[in-house]
Amino acid sequence: MIRTDIARRVYNHTWKLDPIIRSLLDTDFYKLLMLQMIWGLYPDVRATFTLTNRNKRVRLADEIDEGALREQLDHARTIRFTKKEMIWLAGNTFYGRKQIFQPDFLAWLADFRLPEYELSRRDGQFELSFHGRWMETTMWEIPALAIINELRSRAAMRSLGPFALDVLYARAKAKVWEKVERLKKYPDLRISDFGTRRRHSHLWQRWCVEALKEGIGESFTGTSNVLLAMDTDLEALGTNAHELPMVLAALADSDEELKASPYQVLKDWQSYYGGNLLIVLPDTFGTEAFLRSAPHWVAEWTGFRPDSAPPIEGGERIISWWKEHGKDPREKLLIFSDALDVETIERTYLHFKGRVRMAFGWGTNLTNDFEDCAPSEIKSLKAISLVCKVSEANGRPAVKLSDNSEKATGDPDEIRRYLKVFGDESRVRQPVVV
Amino acid sequence: MIRTDIARRVYNHTWKLDPIIRSLLDTDFYKLLMLQMIWGLYPDVRATFTLTNRNKRVRLADEIDEGALREQLDHARTIRFTKKEMIWLAGNTFYGRKQIFQPDFLAWLADFRLPEYELSRRDGQFELSFHGRWMETTMWEIPALAIINELRSRAAMRSLGPFALDVLYARAKAKVWEKVERLKKYPDLRISDFGTRRRHSHLWQRWCVEALKEGIGESFTGTSNVLLAMDTDLEALGTNAHELPMVLAALADSDEELKASPYQVLKDWQSYYGGNLLIVLPDTFGTEAFLRSAPHWVAEWTGFRPDSAPPIEGGERIISWWKEHGKDPREKLLIFSDALDVETIERTYLHFKGRVRMAFGWGTNLTNDFEDCAPSEIKSLKAISLVCKVSEANGRPAVKLSDNSEKATGDPDEIRRYLKVFGDESRVRQPVVV
Repeated sequence: MIRTDIARRVYNHTWKLDPIIRSLLDTDFYKLLMLQMIWGLYPDVRATFTLTNRNKRVRLADEIDEGALREQLDHARTIRFTKKEMIWLAGNTFYGRKQIFQPDFLAWLADFRLPEYELSRRDGQFELSFHGRWMETTMWEIPALAIINELRSRAAMRSLGPFALDVLYARAKAKVWEKVERLKKYPDLRISDFGTRRRHSHLWQRWCVEALKEGIGESFTGTSNVLLAMDTDLEALGTNAHELPMVLAALADSDEELKASPYQVLKDWQSYYGGNLLIVLPDTFGTEAFLRSAPHWVAEWTGFRPDSAPPIEGGERIISWWKEHGKDPREKLLIFSDALDVETIERTYLHFKGRVRMAFGWGTNLTNDFEDCAPSEIKSLKAISLVCKVSEANGRPAVKLSDNSEKATGDPDEIRRYLKVFGDESRVRQPVVV
Repeated sequence: MIRTDIARRVYNHTWKLDPIIRSLLDTDFYKLLMLQMIWGLYPDVRATFTLTNRNKRVRLADEIDEGALREQLDHARTIRFTKKEMIWLAGNTFYGRKQIFQPDFLAWLADFRLPEYELSRRDGQFELSFHGRWMETTMWEIPALAIINELRSRAAMRSLGPFALDVLYARAKAKVWEKVERLKKYPDLRISDFGTRRRHSHLWQRWCVEALKEGIGESFTGTSNVLLAMDTDLEALGTNAHELPMVLAALADSDEELKASPYQVLKDWQSYYGGNLLIVLPDTFGTEAFLRSAPHWVAEWTGFRPDSAPPIEGGERIISWWKEHGKDPREKLLIFSDALDVETIERTYLHFKGRVRMAFGWGTNLTNDFEDCAPSEIKSLKAISLVCKVSEANGRPAVKLSDNSEKATGDPDEIRRYLKVFGDESRVRQPVVV
C-alpha cells in the first residue's frame, strides 16, 4: 500500500529553502582548533578568503543559479551555535583531552556568526570572497565549499526523474559498499572521513559515514565533520591546515622572517595543543625546503601530514628525515589525505605496513564519487577541485607553493619571491584531480 | 508521483523490534534529580516498584501481548547513556544552575543499566515489579509505563487501515492545535509537558512538544522529558515525587519517625538542591496533615505542587497557609499537575491570576488525548490511570494516602496505621480519570 502524506507533500513542494548548512558545527574540526589559536594569538589580523575553481573548464556560474547561492549563503549567516552544541563542545573529549576549548573562547564562540561575503560573476565563474578579521573569515571555507558543491549536485540532478534518481543512489551506495568490502580485508587500517567540503550533499555524507561505521567498524576512526561526530558519537578528527603558514608568511616583514614562518606556526600550535594534535603539515612552501631548514625539535612531533606529494614518495622522504634525526618511524604517524581512494589507500598501506603508523583521511572520493552512477552520463556530477584559500593577510598577498606546482596559489610575483626564499627542489607537476 | 523506496519498505516489514525506549534520557527529569539524592544518601536502601492499573475493567494482559512486552522491557535493559547524553547532562544548565549533577554521580550513571524485572499475569492484568536497590529500581517507573501505554496504543490501532490511521492522526493533531489556540489567549500562562509516562507513543509526544513550542512560544516553558529537552533545546523540568516520602516513611522505626518523615525528605532535598527546585509535594499522606505539622521553614520554600486535591481548593488552602506564615503568595509558586486539560488550566489560571505565580505541568491530556479521533470508537485508545509505585522499602510496605482516597496505595493494615498517625481530615474521594 503506497500512500501520500498530504501534509508532507505540500510541505515538500512549497518550502522556501532547503538549507545546505543547518549548523555551524557542520564544518571540519580543524577549523575550530585553528580558530581557537587565531582568536588567542592573532585576533586583529585581517584575512581574505577567496574561492578558486581549479577546473576552469567547468563553468560554475552557468551551472549554479546565483540567487540560489545567495540564499544559501544568507541562510548560513543566520545560524548560531545552539545550546546543545555549545555544551557538547565544552564537555566532549577530543583526542583524549577534556576541555580542549577554553571557556573564554567558547563564550566568544557562542555569539559567533559568519561574516559578510562578496559575490559576483566573471567568465562563467563565481568570484566569491570573504573580507574581515581572520577569526571570522576562516569559518567560511568549509560551508562555502559545501554549499557550492551541493548546489552543483542538485542542479545536475534536476533533469532526473524519480526512477533515475533511485537508480543513481542505489549505484552510489553499491559503490561505497564495494569500497568498504575491499578495505575490510585490512583490519589494521585506520581510516577517517575528511569529505565535508566536497561532499555530494549533507545527507549523502551522513550516509557514507554511517555506512563506514557499520562496514569497517574499528578501522573507522572518526570524521572531520564536527556535527556528524556529535550526532553519531564518533571521534572528531583533524589538526591544522595551510592557512596558518600562509598567513604567517604573508605577515613576515623580511625574507628571514618569511623563511622562519613555517616553524613559528608550529611553536604557536604547540602553545595550544599537544599529543596527537602535534601533526606537521610540511608542504605549504615545499616539503623539501621545509625539512632542510627544520629545527631538530620538529622531529619530536607526533607525525606529518604529507598533503600534495605522491603518498609513497612523500612518506619515504619523511621517514628518512626522521631517521636522520635519530627517530624510529614506527613510533611516528603519517596521515595521508590528498586525493585518496581505495587503490591509493591500499597501495600506500601495504607499502608502509610495519614501518610507520598510518592514518588515512578519505575525502572527495568517499563523499562524492558518483562516477558511472547516473543512468546516462552527467558531467556535472563529477567532483571538481574547488578550494577556498586565504588570498590576503593584512592587505598583503598570501602564497602557497605546494609540492605540486599545479596546486600553487597566489600572485605570480610573490610566488617568484617565495621560490627564491624557499627553493624549488623536488616540486613536481601532477594533474589536480580533486 | 508516489513511489516505494524498496529498501525502506523491506526494512519496515522485516524489523525485529520497533523500540519504544531508545534512550535512558527518555524519562522524566525529576527521576534524575531524585536519583542523585538517592544515590548520595540512600545507596543501600532496597525498594520494590510495582505496576498498578487503577482502571481494573481494562484487562491490560488481554490487550497487550506478553511476548511483545518482554521484548520491549528486555530492549530497554540493553540501553546505556551515550557519550553525547553524558556530556549534555554534565554541561547543560538546569534551572539556571550549572553542574547540577556531581561528577561522581555522573561517573556512576555512565555505567547504569535498568535492573531485572518480574512479570506474570493474573486476572487479565500484568503483575510487573522491580526488586533491587532503590537507586536502580526507581529508574524503571517511567520507561515501564511508557512501554505499556505505547504497546496498548499499537494494539488498539492494529485493526486500522492506512486511511483510518491518517484520519486518526489528522484529528488528533487538530485537537492539540485547538487547545493551543485556546491557550494562546493568555500570554502569561506558563505550561510545560509532563506527559511522558502516559503518552500515546514517543513520536506522538515529540509531535505534541514541537507543536506547543511553535504554537504558544514563550508560554511553553519546557518538558519533563529529558531526551526531548536535549533534542529540542528546551528546558528540562520537574522536581520530586511521592516515592521520596513513601520510602522514608516506610523506613521509619516508630510512629514519631513516621510523622517526621515528610519533613526529613525536604531536608534531604535541600542538601542537594536550591532555588526553583525547592518545591513541596504535600499530599503523600494528606495535605492537611502535612500543613498542620509543617515547621516554619517549609514556608521559605519556593512553592508547592498540589497533586491530588482539586486545583482551586488545593491552591487556596496552600495560599492561606502561606499567609498564616507571613508570606506573600505573589512571591510563591504553585505548580499544578494533576489531571489537567485546557478547561482546568484555564479555570485555575483565571481563578488565581495576580494572586500567586503559577505553572502547569500538562500530562496525559496533552500527550494521549485521542477521544473521538478514531473513525469508529476504539475503547483501548483511551488513556488509563496506570501507575508504577514504590510498594516496599527494605522489606517494609510503602503507603500513599493522597488527598484523594481513590489514589491511596498500600497494604490496608498499614493504611490504617498511617491514617491514625497523620489523620484523615479533608481527604476526598473523587474518580481517578488519568
